[in-house]
Amino acid sequence: MHVVVNAAMSADGKLSTRRREQVAISGPEDFDRVDALRADVDAVMVGVGTVLADNPSLTLDDPALVREREDAGESPHPARVVADSHARTPPDAKLLDGTAETFVLVAEEEPIEHRETLEEAGATVVVAGENRVALPEALDELASHGVERLMVEGGGELIFSLFDAGLVDELSVFVAPKIIGGRDAPTLADGDGFVGDFPDLELAGVERIDDGVLLEYDCE
Amino acid sequence: MHVVVNAAMSADGKLSTRRREQVAISGPEDFDRVDALRADVDAVMVGVGTVLADNPSLTLDDPALVREREDAGESPHPARVVADSHARTPPDAKLLDGTAETFVLVAEEEPIEHRETLEEAGATVVVAGENRVALPEALDELASHGVERLMVEGGGELIFSLFDAGLVDELSVFVAPKIIGGRDAPTLADGDGFVGDFPDLELAGVERIDDGVLLEYDCE
Ligand SMILES: NC(=O)c1ccc[n+]([C@@H]2O[C@H](COP(=O)([O-])OP(=O)(O)OC[C@H]3O[C@@H](n4cnc5c(N)ncnc54)[C@H](OP(=O)(O)O)[C@@H]3O)[C@@H](O)[C@H]2O)c1
Ligand SMILES: NC(=O)c1ccc[n+]([C@@H]2O[C@H](COP(=O)([O-])OP(=O)(O)OC[C@H]3O[C@@H](n4cnc5c(N)ncnc54)[C@H](OP(=O)(O)O)[C@@H]3O)[C@@H](O)[C@H]2O)c1
Repeated sequence: MHVVVNAAMSADGKLSTRRREQVAISGPEDFDRVDALRADVDAVMVGVGTVLADNPSLTLDDPALVREREDAGESPHPARVVADSHARTPPDAKLLDGTAETFVLVAEEEPIEHRETLEEAGATVVVAGENRVALPEALDELASHGVERLMVEGGGELIFSLFDAGLVDELSVFVAPKIIGGRDAPTLADGDGFVGDFPDLELAGVERIDDGVLLEYDCE
Repeated sequence: MHVVVNAAMSADGKLSTRRREQVAISGPEDFDRVDALRADVDAVMVGVGTVLADNPSLTLDDPALVREREDAGESPHPARVVADSHARTPPDAKLLDGTAETFVLVAEEEPIEHRETLEEAGATVVVAGENRVALPEALDELASHGVERLMVEGGGELIFSLFDAGLVDELSVFVAPKIIGGRDAPTLADGDGFVGDFPDLELAGVERIDDGVLLEYDCE
């Protein structure tokens, strides 16, 4: 499976403020770029932290992109995926609105009733990992459901885990010309962090868009 | 006074790992650029967190830059400045080695004996702010000592406070092609963080250097 991570951060690496509310970080040009990137993948993934904070729909915005997919015999929108070990995704979350297939990845220890609640809300539940979603297994399972290209939109906890498991193929980051600050604000990669053997990236592209810059990396 | 902030961060905004040890983030070309930037200012400033973590000397590396300053009738090296409310700078810190003048900014509540210890170690002590260094006052005091151009090299706590006080004129950041991660790792701007009215930057330059990218911003 090919995994592309995409996010927008402030010049100091933050995805949001310490309050973890949604902040407008990117501009219209980046928004369109992200929409096109979504149109190009089989599924779009976030962590449950992002679902709880932002309640995103993760569907395509531009009807022309929807038509292109349909003309190619694909689903109108890419599938949606939430890494959600303890089934905390609210049944009325926007990404369970039925517009696209939605996979919720949960851990084995999560009681069967919670899985059933999610299934009743329309989710396809994938179980992987004892007490936390095991990403390599979960991604293999998604592959068996036909997901060949996966886009990950955050947040920083999920992105760190994907790097930690060596699962990221490409990273693109829009860097906005603002400072958010905050030792407790979410960053592009949180988790425990590396202390050595840092994942090396290769800078593949640098482009000014909106009033910021888009950095594109290949990952080893 | 003209204040330039310069730092090197990972692609995810980190200045170091969660262990706060010094990490080689930039490459040789960036190192030379920073040396030239130092040669161009009257003083180079860090927070005491950086002194305790890295024990930097903050002096010029290239003898040619030293000679240029001397030929221009300037001190061989720029002065050094530590924001250190509670006089925690060790008397044997490298930046008290006598190679250049060193200002230690302390808070009023700091006992006079501690100030005297620093003075005996060779520091010029500047008192500003009740229980934490008040940066606007402290910078005014440095200006009265002839500091017209100040370069700030970090860390993230000090950089946030400078943005919070509206004291930053320029920001340059080398973004290295690696992921450090870590919700507790220091970032380019820590502190409490902003929750709105984010300081806006203007992207003035984008340049590939070493295997990363240098982003230069003007601050309003
Ligand atoms: N600027 C942007 O581009 C952007 C994009 C996305 C999000 N955001 C912001 O980011 C913030 C949320 O980010 P976040 O880092 O707090 O949350 P997140 O990464 O969206 O979600 C983290 C959660 O995912 C679950 N998870 C399941 N398996 C995991 C695994 N293997 N590794 C890591 N996490 C796993 C964990 O909860 P369980 O243990 O319960 O499973 C974890 O707490 C919000 O403020 C949002 O606005 C910004
Ligand atoms: N990659 C880079 O370019 C780079 C550059 C520098 C540092 N670093 C890394 O950054 C880390 C250290 O950064 P840090 O953020 O922990 O420390 P820091 O910003 O260097 O120092 C913070 C300390 O400065 C003192 N201070 C005094 N007045 C202040 C004020 N008004 N506002 C804020 N701080 C004030 C405070 O201690 P008191 O309350 O005791 O005064 C505060 O704890 C280390 O890991 C170092 O390796 C990396």
